[in-house]
Amino acid sequence: MTKIVSLCKRRGFVFQSSEIYGGLKSSYDYGPLGVELKRNIAAEWWRSMVTEREDVVGLDASIIMHPKVWETSGHVSGFSDPLVDCLNCKERFRADKAPKKEPGESVSFREGGRSDGKKLEAAVTDKGYVCPVCGSPHMSDERQFNGMFKTSLGPVDPLDKFIKGIQGKDLSQKELRAQLEEALASTNVYLRPETAQAMFVQFLNVQQTSSMKVPFGIAQQGKSFRNEIVVEHFIFRSCEFEQMEMEFFVEPGTQKEWLEYWTKTRLDWYKSFANSPEKFVLRRHDSDELAHYSDDCYDVEYEYPWGFDELEGVASRTDYDLSRHAAATGAKLSYFDQSKPDPETGKNGWRYTPYVIEPAAGLTRSLLAFLLDAYTEEKGVDKNGKEKVRVVLKLHPKLAPIKVAVLPLMKKDGHPEKAREIVQAFRKAGVAVKYDEQQAIGKRYAKHDEIGTPFCLTVDGDTMEDGTITIRDRDTTEQERVSVEEAIARVVQRLNS
Amino acid sequence: MTKIVSLCKRRGFVFQSSEIYGGLKSSYDYGPLGVELKRNIAAEWWRSMVTEREDVVGLDASIIMHPKVWETSGHVSGFSDPLVDCLNCKERFRADKAPKKEPGESVSFREGGRSDGKKLEAAVTDKGYVCPVCGSPHMSDERQFNGMFKTSLGPVDPLDKFIKGIQGKDLSQKELRAQLEEALASTNVYLRPETAQAMFVQFLNVQQTSSMKVPFGIAQQGKSFRNEIVVEHFIFRSCEFEQMEMEFFVEPGTQKEWLEYWTKTRLDWYKSFANSPEKFVLRRHDSDELAHYSDDCYDVEYEYPWGFDELEGVASRTDYDLSRHAAATGAKLSYFDQSKPDPETGKNGWRYTPYVIEPAAGLTRSLLAFLLDAYTEEKGVDKNGKEKVRVVLKLHPKLAPIKVAVLPLMKKDGHPEKAREIVQAFRKAGVAVKYDEQQAIGKRYAKHDEIGTPFCLTVDGDTMEDGTITIRDRDTTEQERVSVEEAIARVVQRLNS
Repeated sequence: MTKIVSLCKRRGFVFQSSEIYGGLKSSYDYGPLGVELKRNIAAEWWRSMVTEREDVVGLDASIIMHPKVWETSGHVSGFSDPLVDCLNCKERFRADKAPKKEPGESVSFREGGRSDGKKLEAAVTDKGYVCPVCGSPHMSDERQFNGMFKTSLGPVDPLDKFIKGIQGKDLSQKELRAQLEEALASTNVYLRPETAQAMFVQFLNVQQTSSMKVPFGIAQQGKSFRNEIVVEHFIFRSCEFEQMEMEFFVEPGTQKEWLEYWTKTRLDWYKSFANSPEKFVLRRHDSDELAHYSDDCYDVEYEYPWGFDELEGVASRTDYDLSRHAAATGAKLSYFDQSKPDPETGKNGWRYTPYVIEPAAGLTRSLLAFLLDAYTEEKGVDKNGKEKVRVVLKLHPKLAPIKVAVLPLMKKDGHPEKAREIVQAFRKAGVAVKYDEQQAIGKRYAKHDEIGTPFCLTVDGDTMEDGTITIRDRDTTEQERVSVEEAIARVVQRLNS
Repeated sequence: MTKIVSLCKRRGFVFQSSEIYGGLKSSYDYGPLGVELKRNIAAEWWRSMVTEREDVVGLDASIIMHPKVWETSGHVSGFSDPLVDCLNCKERFRADKAPKKEPGESVSFREGGRSDGKKLEAAVTDKGYVCPVCGSPHMSDERQFNGMFKTSLGPVDPLDKFIKGIQGKDLSQKELRAQLEEALASTNVYLRPETAQAMFVQFLNVQQTSSMKVPFGIAQQGKSFRNEIVVEHFIFRSCEFEQMEMEFFVEPGTQKEWLEYWTKTRLDWYKSFANSPEKFVLRRHDSDELAHYSDDCYDVEYEYPWGFDELEGVASRTDYDLSRHAAATGAKLSYFDQSKPDPETGKNGWRYTPYVIEPAAGLTRSLLAFLLDAYTEEKGVDKNGKEKVRVVLKLHPKLAPIKVAVLPLMKKDGHPEKAREIVQAFRKAGVAVKYDEQQAIGKRYAKHDEIGTPFCLTVDGDTMEDGTITIRDRDTTEQERVSVEEAIARVVQRLNS
């Protein structure tokens, strides 16, 4: 993992956000290569999930939605973690993730959490856990902390109202807090914690304008925001992240077969780009893991350096969301199938609220998984017999930021001009190609191995005479001398395979 | 404009966000066709600005950056509008946009702003403007309202601090407000009001990891957020919008020629997709319009229904941003050119802070402009001699959401199967194609004219015999019978032209 983080920084895949300002907690920027990799993954997802399907259409909704959407969806009341403050070292942490201990058990810790603090002993309280930092059992009460980012929309000023309201009154801290929260809540809007709700809220608009027939899906890619207390594993869990979600609306009673279809389809999608497909697996949720609206759920997991962990959730969400939004707004979020009889009345035509299968992938997580899957170190010897390590990013050619690097051997003798001609020829064939004249040729090969460029083409003296170039394969390092046309044909074939 | 808004809703280009909840001020969702159009515009921009250039690389930065970035950039102190409240009708509005009047002039208005309110007269105050809604000259004091959306990052609670701080103290409204603002500010982060700052803040990381040589550019596409008080003209000005910005770093002294290069390049880009290229024009900023950091600026303007207005700004930003961030952080945001002598010392090698040319385009605005440019009504007569209007969206084929619709004449006789075969053939050729079997063939043609599909292919009885299909041109409505191979060749050629 350290190697990936270092490669990402060194080669311009991922930088810490606002790094010159000391960075911002778990915020990342995607550099010149990272942005291309991310775009390629997103494009492949869109192609397989939308463009190449008759039964799925796209959507791109606003990040700030009507605040009532999140009340209906349950996020305002339910999307919370229990937070506590350690009274000894002042750390604020999640109670449900803290080290569990037996109540009454004696534990030792240092005063103030300092390594030179006085050694103390105390009994674990009824809470049954201790501070994850200093080990003390003394905490504040638990407080629910909502994971949605709040902001205010419009030129209204909630502080005005609050200040006028409390003026001249003798209020307790609790009362003050309640008034302040009420005032702020009156103008609150949220940054979406998932893209999914927009597909439910716009169900009718999309179904009707596109004349979609159930079963059909609505797909969306975009940023979501969660004010995570625990951020971890580089870009795996961060507060700002990117999702690729699809809500697939099906006839009630058919959700099991569609869940099976989509778990298999999504798992196969990951495997189709993988060097180690066996590291991508399905895990079915235990019944006690299921969200209350879900009747079944699988995770696509990847074997990260810290073990198997989530990459995508494929959930059977029943008709929970559509029903809730319909009840909250009075909108008819249902579907009428003329061709089927109503199961209850037996009459022709069946109106029902569709059930939903949701394959919800993380774009930033996929990027991490594909980077990990591609990272390879090959041991060999150099010309002096010394051991050396070749770092290769064996990214699938479809995902690689640069498909072809065209390298003039020298910066003279017409090599650059010829190389740029070849670049144009590749562009005409629709291939993402890069001209690269920096450093010695060996260093350029090593660099393109490290950033995952599948093919390097070199323009040399022979090229100037007979027009042929060498084509070097990233994975085998083998070089062959071919014509430019042959090189284009090979690359295009590999990209389409 | 009304026609465009109606078409957008009816055909699934743009919906109001959270519509079933009554919508949200100036928030829009892009439906199945809108998302494809938006993606196509964004992809063309990226292709011309990044993929096909040696001197520009991409970036995809987080929306929430370190708050000090916005202090340095001047947005915290300067990105504000003067807000006032009308004391008569309670409207809150921007003082700088209110109707100007001569101080002392007598104006009349209705009490409470109600049409049945008592008629009042009063003199315009020294402020020199009246309420834009009711016309009253009585207002509150002006207050600076910052246009950045604020939110809090992390599990810290600024309210705690405030409430403990004021407890038991007898504070004035002004003091309370100051304390509350200070407490909130301690955890404030902002949603970026522009994507540009990330390119300055990551200048060194990008330049070094990609070994870029000045002149070079960093490009980014993504959402930005401005808490606009006045939102107008559909998606033209909304609080959440999408930008396509590029910062092009140049040697000091060469900014004039690069500004000229980029204004021309960007204007040509718009024109290359336009039906009415003359509606896209350049307008140079007057010197009193220039931002304090800018030494010259052009707008690419489009002739919207309400007149010429901004589409893209191309600004010469001097070395303002890099210098400010360097001063604030101590980072060396400069460039060393070995090949040039220092103009001051005459010694070999010149270290300087690059000047910046910024072509900053609005993706959502471009989408509106291209829709307006494409919207056409053609008058004709139907078979009964009655006048009829054909609505055609003459989108450039590269931008059209669907390039080719394949239409089986009937839902039987093997037409659907044959049509789906043809769909596969187009997909193999990399063309975004849609199978469409709904409604009568005439209605399908009309629909695809309205959504801008350049080609309709129809599978009929003859197709089943000799394999030929009819290809219908959106703009001429002419149909020709050709082979599938010929149809693919024509479409591909048109897409690449």
